[in-house]
Amino acid sequence: MNFRSDNTAAAAAEILAALAAANDPHAPAYGEDQWSKQLDVKFGELFEHEVRVFTVATGTAANAIALASLTPPWGKVFCHREAHIERDECGAPEFFSGGAKLALIDGPHAKISADGLREALARSAADIHAPKPAAVSISQTTERGGAYAPGDIAALAEVARDKGLALHMDGARFANAVAALGCSPADISWRAGVDILSFGATKNGALAAEAIVVFDPARADEIARRRKRGGHLFSKGRYAAAQLLAYVDNGLWLSLAGRANGLAARLAEAADPWLSQPVQTNQLFLKPGAERIAKLRAAGVGFYDWGGRECEEIRLVVSWNQADAEVDALAQLLRALR
Amino acid sequence: MNFRSDNTAAAAAEILAALAAANDPHAPAYGEDQWSKQLDVKFGELFEHEVRVFTVATGTAANAIALASLTPPWGKVFCHREAHIERDECGAPEFFSGGAKLALIDGPHAKISADGLREALARSAADIHAPKPAAVSISQTTERGGAYAPGDIAALAEVARDKGLALHMDGARFANAVAALGCSPADISWRAGVDILSFGATKNGALAAEAIVVFDPARADEIARRRKRGGHLFSKGRYAAAQLLAYVDNGLWLSLAGRANGLAARLAEAADPWLSQPVQTNQLFLKPGAERIAKLRAAGVGFYDWGGRECEEIRLVVSWNQADAEVDALAQLLRALR
Amino acid sequence: MNFRSDNTAAAAAEILAALAAANDPHAPAYGEDQWSKQLDVKFGELFEHEVRVFTVATGTAANAIALASLTPPWGKVFCHREAHIERDECGAPEFFSGGAKLALIDGPHAKISADGLREALARSAADIHAPKPAAVSISQTTERGGAYAPGDIAALAEVARDKGLALHMDGARFANAVAALGCSPADISWRAGVDILSFGATKNGALAAEAIVVFDPARADEIARRRKRGGHLFSKGRYAAAQLLAYVDNGLWLSLAGRANGLAARLAEAADPWLSQPVQTNQLFLKPGAERIAKLRAAGVGFYDWGGRECEEIRLVVSWNQADAEVDALAQLLRALR
Amino acid sequence: MNFRSDNTAAAAAEILAALAAANDPHAPAYGEDQWSKQLDVKFGELFEHEVRVFTVATGTAANAIALASLTPPWGKVFCHREAHIERDECGAPEFFSGGAKLALIDGPHAKISADGLREALARSAADIHAPKPAAVSISQTTERGGAYAPGDIAALAEVARDKGLALHMDGARFANAVAALGCSPADISWRAGVDILSFGATKNGALAAEAIVVFDPARADEIARRRKRGGHLFSKGRYAAAQLLAYVDNGLWLSLAGRANGLAARLAEAADPWLSQPVQTNQLFLKPGAERIAKLRAAGVGFYDWGGRECEEIRLVVSWNQADAEVDALAQLLRALR
Repeated sequence: MNFRSDNTAAAAAEILAALAAANDPHAPAYGEDQWSKQLDVKFGELFEHEVRVFTVATGTAANAIALASLTPPWGKVFCHREAHIERDECGAPEFFSGGAKLALIDGPHAKISADGLREALARSAADIHAPKPAAVSISQTTERGGAYAPGDIAALAEVARDKGLALHMDGARFANAVAALGCSPADISWRAGVDILSFGATKNGALAAEAIVVFDPARADEIARRRKRGGHLFSKGRYAAAQLLAYVDNGLWLSLAGRANGLAARLAEAADPWLSQPVQTNQLFLKPGAERIAKLRAAGVGFYDWGGRECEEIRLVVSWNQADAEVDALAQLLRALR
Repeated sequence: MNFRSDNTAAAAAEILAALAAANDPHAPAYGEDQWSKQLDVKFGELFEHEVRVFTVATGTAANAIALASLTPPWGKVFCHREAHIERDECGAPEFFSGGAKLALIDGPHAKISADGLREALARSAADIHAPKPAAVSISQTTERGGAYAPGDIAALAEVARDKGLALHMDGARFANAVAALGCSPADISWRAGVDILSFGATKNGALAAEAIVVFDPARADEIARRRKRGGHLFSKGRYAAAQLLAYVDNGLWLSLAGRANGLAARLAEAADPWLSQPVQTNQLFLKPGAERIAKLRAAGVGFYDWGGRECEEIRLVVSWNQADAEVDALAQLLRALR
Repeated sequence: MNFRSDNTAAAAAEILAALAAANDPHAPAYGEDQWSKQLDVKFGELFEHEVRVFTVATGTAANAIALASLTPPWGKVFCHREAHIERDECGAPEFFSGGAKLALIDGPHAKISADGLREALARSAADIHAPKPAAVSISQTTERGGAYAPGDIAALAEVARDKGLALHMDGARFANAVAALGCSPADISWRAGVDILSFGATKNGALAAEAIVVFDPARADEIARRRKRGGHLFSKGRYAAAQLLAYVDNGLWLSLAGRANGLAARLAEAADPWLSQPVQTNQLFLKPGAERIAKLRAAGVGFYDWGGRECEEIRLVVSWNQADAEVDALAQLLRALR
Repeated sequence: MNFRSDNTAAAAAEILAALAAANDPHAPAYGEDQWSKQLDVKFGELFEHEVRVFTVATGTAANAIALASLTPPWGKVFCHREAHIERDECGAPEFFSGGAKLALIDGPHAKISADGLREALARSAADIHAPKPAAVSISQTTERGGAYAPGDIAALAEVARDKGLALHMDGARFANAVAALGCSPADISWRAGVDILSFGATKNGALAAEAIVVFDPARADEIARRRKRGGHLFSKGRYAAAQLLAYVDNGLWLSLAGRANGLAARLAEAADPWLSQPVQTNQLFLKPGAERIAKLRAAGVGFYDWGGRECEEIRLVVSWNQADAEVDALAQLLRALR
């Protein structure tokens, strides 16, 4: 019963098959192949907007390259205190940007609100001695499984635009948000004011396929340069592209994410008394007490402690390919612990 | 008849199959999976030496991360004027190292000699005003298809060690060199004095699998950090690892490279009057004159011009999966042009 | 009545005279002159320890270069939330270090305590995904005018050493601390565990003279390189050196700082009802209420608001050359406002 | 007889006096003082153009900050192989720019010509794999004492503009060029197409005063930020400003430089048989043979060997305050060696 993370899950059969299908004897290198070339078209349709799509190896690379293009080295990027870019990327945004700073904002469910952003901006000195506010980065879904509604994002974007800040979205679990919100990809990206989206597929069925989706073509050249210098321009670009094409083909990405979300909802019901966060997507956070945590572990459930020892909080992540039987077993276990 | 580059070639069937075989429903992330964990063991056997193997997305990443760990930001890295790190990485080594400089050395066949290195070192100012000599980087095979013999490397390593410089090898086509030289991997790496090797598999049958092979475990921690910050620590590490394991399993890598080298030798015979470089591996450089170049193009042969208009030099690269028929057809074409 | 900052104050006559005295027709460049060469000797005596002294143009440069030599790019530097390196250097530490992160610790009087550091370290993830704890930086005096006693520093150093962290001291107002504590420079630097000290003279009577004082000679080469690359190796090094020599000669630095501290103490008495921080050195922080603030301004007293509108806190800084009459007038004014 | 470098020379009396005159008890910090504020006005008059003037501590800082604002991290800066930014700044341009590359051009007298630049641009690959041509940097006077005539610069600027490249001038010895050419400062800067000028005063009579002179106000904000982050924003800005104001006041800078040039011309006459470079300004390069070099040294003349042992070339630099007697003595010595 492995609920550690969705990055422990396998690749979807459709995506593996796409690799084989792209295995023509020869194809042009460095993104000139037919699969890479389809990316802008297919994602343009998906997002109902002209886009430029840049594949990279990891979500960290997508975030760091995107942010580096949105802030000068002396800039300040506002994000939630629990953001992946702050906690889990070993300073990649600082490295790629040449030393920009992350300014941390608090807020429930690992979300930042328009008011939270406004206050953080008000606290930011405007003189030459302080880094210059340059961008906002939000995670969709958040590190606590929350999803920003289109209106949440638009409100943030308005505050940002007002101060000349760009808006970045870390969409490592973008599919789970779209599936949960039932909105269109456009509604929670460019239409709500997002400038660049890190579009993740790895956690939801790809092997290793992340994309930087740029909604303003004027930003594309810089992304291309930063990707190349970061060692993220694949020579055999077709394999990353093929994964992404298969991922969005026929709504595969949303059925996979929807399934994970649905299973998580089932677990949420069972774990209801101990939920420490509302369950919107495929992550659950519980505070069931030390004894129950021990019992879950003893029963062979795999998961991570969250946020240090005192708080006795745990995280369960449901993957796209989580076996129904595992979910049922865990649900039963949880009910038995009530 | 595509002879543009070996990075246009498909992935080998064995390597695709390995991806499928690694597709267990769940596996630990970030290199804790069983495939990743086998890497150090298998490569340790292959290299007859304790090694630490770090997968990354591209050869550029392997080179830049390796070099950044071998030079301080104020260091100088000696390499050939035509080196990939100088010409084709858009400044990735400068980016990852925080601004180190490449110092260029000339030499036939894109090789640097011990004497060439000695002279370059003698020209390097030793005071605080000049960057500090820190490392040497050589390409095996070279950008002109040459291969450094074990003795060549040992001679370079001796000069380097004498001055406290580290030795890096860009092995994007390491397999072709091993196959051509008929030596062991150890003979042209650590045994000859190489500190870190960028071990390439992508050009020779993988989808996207490059490795930084570290021969001194004391260097491993820094590589791990730099890889993470560069966005090159795969969450689903098993897929890159599985490619590399399949690649070296049963000598697949050497049969693929050996085949390409052999086909190139066949073409070399046919192109003999115009060879501008000795053909040791899977690359050919010709100066057949403008008329013959036009005829080759007209006949549907794909290749790149090399080094600017005046010189009328072209490069032909034979891939691991080049069809025999294509090679035969090109050889016949070349003979007809004599 | 200018109490805005001690960096508005003039240069001391002794220091101006030293510039003239160093104005020999010719002197070797880049630190080979006799004044620069005396620095290590004189500061060695002052600190009762072998030191290497590197002059730089500003305190920001001293801090950033020192920190960059104490942390890898993927490191984390612990400091107080109000530290100058966090608030007032526009990201210089991030720039010089290649993207290290500052981790903020709270604590009264802008001091961090051994316990505060211990807790921050306990909260720091130790895995590859988080920046690696590398150094601690404290300000002496603090940004709130506090001074760390030798024991405070030793306690911090012990926690730091235990975890392999280096200890840096931002001594932009080091003189004020030594004068206030009545200890030796050694007692609050190397003897208490400080690895590198940013030794400031500019705020206390120099024109522009700051020094990086290195207590471990093994660290000197890296500082020298980073200084050169930062554009802080003066060609006519004698003038910066001459300022520093005059500054410490005959205890000038301590008489100037002692005078400022003493005048501040006089003001502290007058402002006693509203002091928001204990007054140890030459800075006062008051919360006298909006009306009194307005009256002080109307009376021509120059000072800065501190920390945003709501808190109605102000800062008064007494310079080394503050006129007695000004201090008396302000003290009287304050008493009248009771 | 010290002819080692003009950076061994003292400060001019007028400039020392200006420091004393600027020593008001209190003056606003960080460039808000009256002296700093006059810089833009005075230099605007001097250059007959709106300018923004940024003082920094060294010429290396001026060059590196200027270049970093003219090239992206993935850019290429064209300069002469012997340029100070290539040879003598320990990689400061690479550091400040985040890893841009210098592309070296040859040419007599350490000058690059419009043709040389054109050829270097033609050799530069335009694809994503190579750094992008971004700027040109020339030294006025050059590292071999040459001066670019207004037409030389305009020709370079035209080639640069054509390709979208910016033009930077390293004017560490700008005064010597203006004095030698008898032109206006405008003629060899913005009027000829220079975008940013590093304006040096240190070598020609200041203590430590260099300025970045920006001819396009739109570039000023970035320079301000980069200066601050580099630790080059002086808190007591008045002292650097006062030096520069005194330097250009009443043509002091040109009389000092003119004097040095004139004395150098006198020496050139005496050294005529061995001059290896035409003498336009205050530097002389000679190849008098090993025996004569030894005799000069034995006679107590101080100078540097230039460019390695084989070439037996030496450099003599005449400072603004070189004693007439020294020049006469050296001239006599040289004549005696004929």
